[in-house]
Amino acid sequence: MNLTPTNEFPNESEIASRLEKVQQEMHKQGLDYYLCHDPDNIFYLTNFANFIHERPFIVIVPVSGAITFLIPKLEEPHVQIRSVGEINYLSYFEFPAPKGEMWFDRLQDVLKPSHRVGIESLCPVNVHNAVPGEAIISDIVDDVRMIKSEFEINRIAYTCQLLNEGHATLLEQAAPGHMPVLSHKEISGSMTQRMITDNLSSNLLCTNFAAVSQPPNLSHDPHNFTDVLTTMVEGGPHVTVVAGKANGYGAELERTFFLGHVPEKAKKPFEDMLEARALAYELTIPGNCMSEVDRKVNDFFKSRGYAKNLLHRTGHSFGVTNHEAPFLAEGYEHEIKPNMIFSIEPGIYLPSIGGFRFSDTVLVTESGNLKMTKAPETLEELTLPIKNL
Amino acid sequence: MNLTPTNEFPNESEIASRLEKVQQEMHKQGLDYYLCHDPDNIFYLTNFANFIHERPFIVIVPVSGAITFLIPKLEEPHVQIRSVGEINYLSYFEFPAPKGEMWFDRLQDVLKPSHRVGIESLCPVNVHNAVPGEAIISDIVDDVRMIKSEFEINRIAYTCQLLNEGHATLLEQAAPGHMPVLSHKEISGSMTQRMITDNLSSNLLCTNFAAVSQPPNLSHDPHNFTDVLTTMVEGGPHVTVVAGKANGYGAELERTFFLGHVPEKAKKPFEDMLEARALAYELTIPGNCMSEVDRKVNDFFKSRGYAKNLLHRTGHSFGVTNHEAPFLAEGYEHEIKPNMIFSIEPGIYLPSIGGFRFSDTVLVTESGNLKMTKAPETLEELTLPIKNL
Repeated sequence: MNLTPTNEFPNESEIASRLEKVQQEMHKQGLDYYLCHDPDNIFYLTNFANFIHERPFIVIVPVSGAITFLIPKLEEPHVQIRSVGEINYLSYFEFPAPKGEMWFDRLQDVLKPSHRVGIESLCPVNVHNAVPGEAIISDIVDDVRMIKSEFEINRIAYTCQLLNEGHATLLEQAAPGHMPVLSHKEISGSMTQRMITDNLSSNLLCTNFAAVSQPPNLSHDPHNFTDVLTTMVEGGPHVTVVAGKANGYGAELERTFFLGHVPEKAKKPFEDMLEARALAYELTIPGNCMSEVDRKVNDFFKSRGYAKNLLHRTGHSFGVTNHEAPFLAEGYEHEIKPNMIFSIEPGIYLPSIGGFRFSDTVLVTESGNLKMTKAPETLEELTLPIKNL
Repeated sequence: MNLTPTNEFPNESEIASRLEKVQQEMHKQGLDYYLCHDPDNIFYLTNFANFIHERPFIVIVPVSGAITFLIPKLEEPHVQIRSVGEINYLSYFEFPAPKGEMWFDRLQDVLKPSHRVGIESLCPVNVHNAVPGEAIISDIVDDVRMIKSEFEINRIAYTCQLLNEGHATLLEQAAPGHMPVLSHKEISGSMTQRMITDNLSSNLLCTNFAAVSQPPNLSHDPHNFTDVLTTMVEGGPHVTVVAGKANGYGAELERTFFLGHVPEKAKKPFEDMLEARALAYELTIPGNCMSEVDRKVNDFFKSRGYAKNLLHRTGHSFGVTNHEAPFLAEGYEHEIKPNMIFSIEPGIYLPSIGGFRFSDTVLVTESGNLKMTKAPETLEELTLPIKNL
């Protein structure tokens, strides 16, 4: 499959095809309406991304025909600028508002007690309770999002391109004494600028980039970014995190690297992680069960003595977020299908040594998989010469 | 009241006093436990702020004694670094996970069918459904958050200081042809740097700053930030938005300004807005009803012919967020009390002319109110001389 990276927003036919898939599934499940409250699901169906505040935005999908977008009056003009596709707008004045003028009063203009209405499992309980008819939890939009269209694949390929360049710069800047927070500031700024140059209508409200690395004293604790003043040191393992959403589409790229030399005790875990990673790539192909991929990877790690060094699943998907279903995780009994996209990132974490993890954004093809991100892969390439600051 | 701005994190006694208020209210409402899922409520009760992902974090508050914090194993070490107060940790391996090992299985280790459990109105319906006993919607933590402690007032005063300086720089940089996005980048960077210098343990995960202005072609649509390349022009009204959270505590400061001259048709709306603002300050005092403040301000605007130019309520509160209850809004029938903090920001929006709004962060005192933010207030001061770029 040839990737053709694009930074455009979806056109009407892309949005219509997403809606059609949702409506087909609603039909199967016997739903009259489906209610989206999740900003990511709303972005998926409308291309509208806002900063999130306490005034609810709700997309009401009928089993056929155009959606209704319930929004605060304050947001009307620019919701209409950003949104794509056929949409009926319905607005309420404010939150809070006098009796009879609240958002849930407008909801009842469309939904009636006789309607069977689907809602997201993460839907707030007060929105659930405002549905006048029967509310059925069913993550239809999340499910449709799992299989990517050609447009989505190429949009994510664009984000991958930005990350590839950012990651290369991150490794160039790596040096003992260097503060990762400074690289983050510079590189996330460059990625943003590049994105805007490539699409002058870029939407910063659905854009975020991280470009940092964790030095060996933190890399065993992979979500620990508590020390903004931390610095890189000679040796390693350092672990990079270059990730983000460009105009609403996410990807990630991570590597384990060393400065100057590889400590003796880090060599074996590095090679074991690479072996687990190769196994994960071998298994992440159409027809396999997601749970099984993770179980086999975890079993491999356990067989090498790392049972206590596992902190997370083998992978997760991307799309209009940086982290979403489906998951390569034990207990997640679903089949891998073409045009799914996963992070493949088996990792091990040794408190006295550090973390060992590569992550790439990987497309499942008809016959196997395709790495969409690109960075050095061998211990030799990832042992960087020491530069003086 | 003297403000003593501080950028410290809350100490154990501050956190204990918040918990005590929540537990007193739980006792009154006959609840055995209260379940917090909202990251802001969790931050309020623990000082822990994370980037939000699909793995749930849940704080379980018993009617007496220490809280239990249910977290993914992945997060354990740094949750413990950031958290303040007495906490029992309970972890689950991953999301998703095999049967019996999911987050909701651990929830049942604490909550039993006989318990009466309070939950937030914004709690996801799947978390609500995982409560084994009776779940009662009651926004106890949100309600406790409405009255600020001395510590919180001084923390917000610190954020206001940063915003005051950022706002002054924004006005200094204003010039026809200048892109607000460039000011945003520079000023939000400086505010972040200043915050880190003042507290080397700063937490970027609960920090965000905006420092932009909307030129007259956009300022009538106050949440329209769709055009990143927009530029300032001679004349006005431009409207500034300098807002944010520094280490988790929010505030805002906004002004309407002109470059070089004030268009004739902008003079009257500017003066009318100032008059409405004076009225709002007069009314935002202990004992008054929040709904009434907004109704009187709106009635004033309507009496001057602006019925079609209203887009939002008079104000909202701040705290561990930039926007929260209580609200100065018609329909919100609650009494104003000392140590509440509000934005006071009556605004009018004239599509062919632009927006007219000032916003300040205002503390309600025993006898009146105190403006915590500071920026020019008169039309003369806000008509800036034209600088060449």
